[in-house]
Amino acid sequence: VRILIINPNSDPGMTRKIEEAARAFAGDAFEVVCLATPGAPRFIDTYEDQTLAAPGMAGLLRENHDAFDAFVVACHCDPNLDLMKEISRKPVVGIGEASMKMATMLGHRFSVVSTAARSIPNKEALIERYGLRGALASVRAPEVEGLEGLESDLEERFFRAGRAAIDEDGAEVIVLGCAGLAGLDKRLEKRLGVPVLDGVVCALIVAAGMARYGVATSKAGRYNPEA
Amino acid sequence: VRILIINPNSDPGMTRKIEEAARAFAGDAFEVVCLATPGAPRFIDTYEDQTLAAPGMAGLLRENHDAFDAFVVACHCDPNLDLMKEISRKPVVGIGEASMKMATMLGHRFSVVSTAARSIPNKEALIERYGLRGALASVRAPEVEGLEGLESDLEERFFRAGRAAIDEDGAEVIVLGCAGLAGLDKRLEKRLGVPVLDGVVCALIVAAGMARYGVATSKAGRYNPEA
Amino acid sequence: VRILIINPNSDPGMTRKIEEAARAFAGDAFEVVCLATPGAPRFIDTYEDQTLAAPGMAGLLRENHDAFDAFVVACHCDPNLDLMKEISRKPVVGIGEASMKMATMLGHRFSVVSTAARSIPNKEALIERYGLRGALASVRAPEVEGLEGLESDLEERFFRAGRAAIDEDGAEVIVLGCAGLAGLDKRLEKRLGVPVLDGVVCALIVAAGMARYGVATSKAGRYNPEA
Amino acid sequence: VRILIINPNSDPGMTRKIEEAARAFAGDAFEVVCLATPGAPRFIDTYEDQTLAAPGMAGLLRENHDAFDAFVVACHCDPNLDLMKEISRKPVVGIGEASMKMATMLGHRFSVVSTAARSIPNKEALIERYGLRGALASVRAPEVEGLEGLESDLEERFFRAGRAAIDEDGAEVIVLGCAGLAGLDKRLEKRLGVPVLDGVVCALIVAAGMARYGVATSKAGRYNPEA
Amino acid sequence: VRILIINPNSDPGMTRKIEEAARAFAGDAFEVVCLATPGAPRFIDTYEDQTLAAPGMAGLLRENHDAFDAFVVACHCDPNLDLMKEISRKPVVGIGEASMKMATMLGHRFSVVSTAARSIPNKEALIERYGLRGALASVRAPEVEGLEGLESDLEERFFRAGRAAIDEDGAEVIVLGCAGLAGLDKRLEKRLGVPVLDGVVCALIVAAGMARYGVATSKAGRYNPEA
Amino acid sequence: VRILIINPNSDPGMTRKIEEAARAFAGDAFEVVCLATPGAPRFIDTYEDQTLAAPGMAGLLRENHDAFDAFVVACHCDPNLDLMKEISRKPVVGIGEASMKMATMLGHRFSVVSTAARSIPNKEALIERYGLRGALASVRAPEVEGLEGLESDLEERFFRAGRAAIDEDGAEVIVLGCAGLAGLDKRLEKRLGVPVLDGVVCALIVAAGMARYGVATSKAGRYNPEA
Repeated sequence: VRILIINPNSDPGMTRKIEEAARAFAGDAFEVVCLATPGAPRFIDTYEDQTLAAPGMAGLLRENHDAFDAFVVACHCDPNLDLMKEISRKPVVGIGEASMKMATMLGHRFSVVSTAARSIPNKEALIERYGLRGALASVRAPEVEGLEGLESDLEERFFRAGRAAIDEDGAEVIVLGCAGLAGLDKRLEKRLGVPVLDGVVCALIVAAGMARYGVATSKAGRYNPEA
Repeated sequence: VRILIINPNSDPGMTRKIEEAARAFAGDAFEVVCLATPGAPRFIDTYEDQTLAAPGMAGLLRENHDAFDAFVVACHCDPNLDLMKEISRKPVVGIGEASMKMATMLGHRFSVVSTAARSIPNKEALIERYGLRGALASVRAPEVEGLEGLESDLEERFFRAGRAAIDEDGAEVIVLGCAGLAGLDKRLEKRLGVPVLDGVVCALIVAAGMARYGVATSKAGRYNPEA
Repeated sequence: VRILIINPNSDPGMTRKIEEAARAFAGDAFEVVCLATPGAPRFIDTYEDQTLAAPGMAGLLRENHDAFDAFVVACHCDPNLDLMKEISRKPVVGIGEASMKMATMLGHRFSVVSTAARSIPNKEALIERYGLRGALASVRAPEVEGLEGLESDLEERFFRAGRAAIDEDGAEVIVLGCAGLAGLDKRLEKRLGVPVLDGVVCALIVAAGMARYGVATSKAGRYNPEA
Repeated sequence: VRILIINPNSDPGMTRKIEEAARAFAGDAFEVVCLATPGAPRFIDTYEDQTLAAPGMAGLLRENHDAFDAFVVACHCDPNLDLMKEISRKPVVGIGEASMKMATMLGHRFSVVSTAARSIPNKEALIERYGLRGALASVRAPEVEGLEGLESDLEERFFRAGRAAIDEDGAEVIVLGCAGLAGLDKRLEKRLGVPVLDGVVCALIVAAGMARYGVATSKAGRYNPEA
Repeated sequence: VRILIINPNSDPGMTRKIEEAARAFAGDAFEVVCLATPGAPRFIDTYEDQTLAAPGMAGLLRENHDAFDAFVVACHCDPNLDLMKEISRKPVVGIGEASMKMATMLGHRFSVVSTAARSIPNKEALIERYGLRGALASVRAPEVEGLEGLESDLEERFFRAGRAAIDEDGAEVIVLGCAGLAGLDKRLEKRLGVPVLDGVVCALIVAAGMARYGVATSKAGRYNPEA
Repeated sequence: VRILIINPNSDPGMTRKIEEAARAFAGDAFEVVCLATPGAPRFIDTYEDQTLAAPGMAGLLRENHDAFDAFVVACHCDPNLDLMKEISRKPVVGIGEASMKMATMLGHRFSVVSTAARSIPNKEALIERYGLRGALASVRAPEVEGLEGLESDLEERFFRAGRAAIDEDGAEVIVLGCAGLAGLDKRLEKRLGVPVLDGVVCALIVAAGMARYGVATSKAGRYNPEA
């Protein structure tokens, strides 16, 4: 099984980091490649960033469609995911959907810890679109907690936001609201004592599994461009 | 008040038709211009069509931002509406949201009659995203009713779908699921005996009203690209 | 287009104030008259107040039905709105429904700032009835914030409640939970930096638009007394 | 324990019928009186009928408040129930809420069989207001089934509607959507093989129980006119 | 009418206490017996406790089925309630469902005050299963409030948790989240000024009422083991 | 990675069939063993069947806890799943939750095709408990379609039910509502043209992935028996 991770942004460092973490997880169970999106912004933050990434993402998907068995969209806001599912006849999994749906199988309620306060309402909108509001404890972002000064210590900031989500919001599982945080999940898990999910790993599990199973996005209607 | 209607597709005939209907409604209450989207497909059907329309729509919005007081996105699937709201500091209204939310003030439940069966799941997904499922009677498309042969008679096909929505699904209001059907609303209304809403008119009401009132999309979070 | 605003209470000062604000908004786009409800209490606060206002409201609607094109019920709890829609064959719009549904087109979530803490559960019940809970940030009332001493400064009290709704509850739009606060919307909007909606203006937009469009409450079932 | 059943309409025959059935159920467990509402219509069908019944209902409640321990509103659309709860410091139970909430403890989903098709959307609106949509199989009315000719045989019409609700909609419990049908419940139950609930009996169970228990409508907020 | 209260745990003291309270409420209106569950744990806390109680509960129900007219499951997490309803052809009522559904007829929103913080998510899961989330103010447990030191004073701990639920969460009714607290309801009600519901009493009201009415769990599908 | 599949029933043939299919899917990616539950019924159909299986399932889990890395509960009604998650410190996945949540990533709406009509309401109750009602097209069972005579041809019966789910209910993904149907998924998929999910495979994907990832059920609250 060969999986292509499409990093919707164009940042080579983040792309490399995602690929390294993905390969570490994949081991020899499946092959994995991560590609940055040509023409996309360096970071996907706004709705416009998502739009700007779309042509490059569609291009990557089409050019590599034959060479891979499944595709992962590696940005936690699942940008252009409906588009990717429509284009492909193979499995396409977003790290947002995979991580949050897996979280519901691991505990009563989950919280998403995002990198920036500005992404909170957008993330909430995504969660409602997925029908997951009932399983949501909260969406938190470190700087909302008044930790702006700790920029040098990303782990500490995520730890405090996660701690608050558990203690104040009733979260039993923490979902990292961003790709490119490889390693943070296990360090936080150790300190927080609850499962901490990295979306890329969750999406790889689902995508590789679907590919092995031989199932792909339904072309019965919503994702069939030729219907 | 000057309103720009952005037709997300590039069809000049449909653009002209929308503009004529919009002007007929506007009378001398406000000015209205409708522009086709450069580089967009001739018809917005798939998620990819929506993506292909995005750059042109963003361009139209930016180029005309100073010259207009409010903007209407004239495709009933509200393509790229989050993006438009994010870009603009003025009111931006989708014909899907405006027509369906106005429908909830006119009767118990509404049905959307779409042009094509393939758009039903996509429309349902939009309706759930807006939290309107509780007010929905059904989404219907003429050909689902087995009326494919009647292509020459659009009105008859919509009439039968609307009739079924009222009689079988409990619809009390009918929403036309497509722009560019000017005139059909009033002809159907007469035959069906319930309100039939054209999204362009509904969006013009809301957009012109917001402009007169001096309110615009909130920049408190979700739609603020610089937060 | 001629619109009758029915003020469900009998307070002449509030009636005058609503009419002045409505006329200022209407300009020469449409005519507007506001009438107080004969036999109604001076203020609509309780369910009994709503009941006591019903006969007078129904009477006003019937007596003026021919002379006006659309009707607005100008109390934010939308008292007797089902009744008004049932009686009339013309558009009838409540300021509660219009303002809160318009709010959902302007930002991620809205908060209602009411005049009194006692109205919070009643307002919440109304919001759930409209299926708007998913778009609600909170219902707040100034005195809940411990600002009872500031009665002399209504604006300051609403400002603080609105500020808290934005900062603590994630509100991106503020809806004034009472009629008769003309002018407060724009003053607060300036200070709060988010859209602040006066229900009377919102309902006028919708009602005048419906009248121009020629649509009215469906008589297909729920609001048809003769079915 | 003494319970007053307020029949919101003014029909003496129906009032007598309700009282007889109530007394038959009460036996010597509690006392029960049923009064018709002065000034109310002969039948509560429309929203206006509900409004017209309000003053008389409030009057009955106030005049008899000291003499009874609990109150039942005996029309299945629960007219003016919020008002009754607000006025009283004793338990007030609607036959709609009591029967439908009791139904959820007796089977997976319930259907309401109403007397008239026109009441279906109104009943649906009531059910959503109570948050019971998830437990609802359907609302049916005999004449929707094309049984208008059977007016002479009420039982047969309800039987067929109930049968369809069970077979086609998955109903496991049937709720009679009207007061004044005493005896029909048990006859239908025998033929349909599922529980058939008469709202008056259900409300008596709850109201008498609350009175014995010494609990009454909370005056913490929503139903406190003096808060 | 004879009612059997099945105490899912094996604690004789608690069983006796429940029976005494139940008899005090029943007076001479109906007979009531409370039995402890053979083989069950001393206290039902975990999912495993519920499982361990199941065989004994099923045994009690079967052995006593002919001798009683209705059954109450007297643990507020409603353990094995689906099983009990499936086994029996008579009414079976859980104290959790009865108390929370009755609470919705007494005020806007209710809070459950549980004995232990660990039961909060489990209780929330139960409430969502019943579709009652919309009517829920909160689930609270005394020790969450930092009152662990007050173990000697159960009433004081429940009072503080109830007070917080009313003042901070908007609760208008308090539901005791545990059986075996007879007497606490009335003492708290006096101090808190809102209805405080003991589940055993609520379930007795419903179960005795159903038995008198002659209705029982539907065997149309979900609870029919032989279908 | 070693995974234990717990077949909640005691049928050796079904156990063997599940194990064979699981091994075929696992290949050399992970080891898998399937064990029948001692003391359980031959088939899990009723709530009592679930209860009777509980002690044996708990025993299997405890005895094999050290020897395996993750556990799958292989009955589509996810019997005793909360219990299994509470007992274990390793991942535990139900085939119901895994298949239905995976279905939501493959298409707009899914239908479950169950083996027996009697399981429909129970399955619906499970789906609502998981918050998946919004993504559900329908639950169907072959014999509801009037195909009882085709017992000799299981595939044909499932095909017709699946076909109806797609054509009439809008299903885009089919979920097999029973374990032990290995092979049927791929045969149906070929004929129906949409993804057909076998729960055992879906749960293996998720469970093996969780084990590889090193995450397990949260012990923060709901599933912590010692909290």
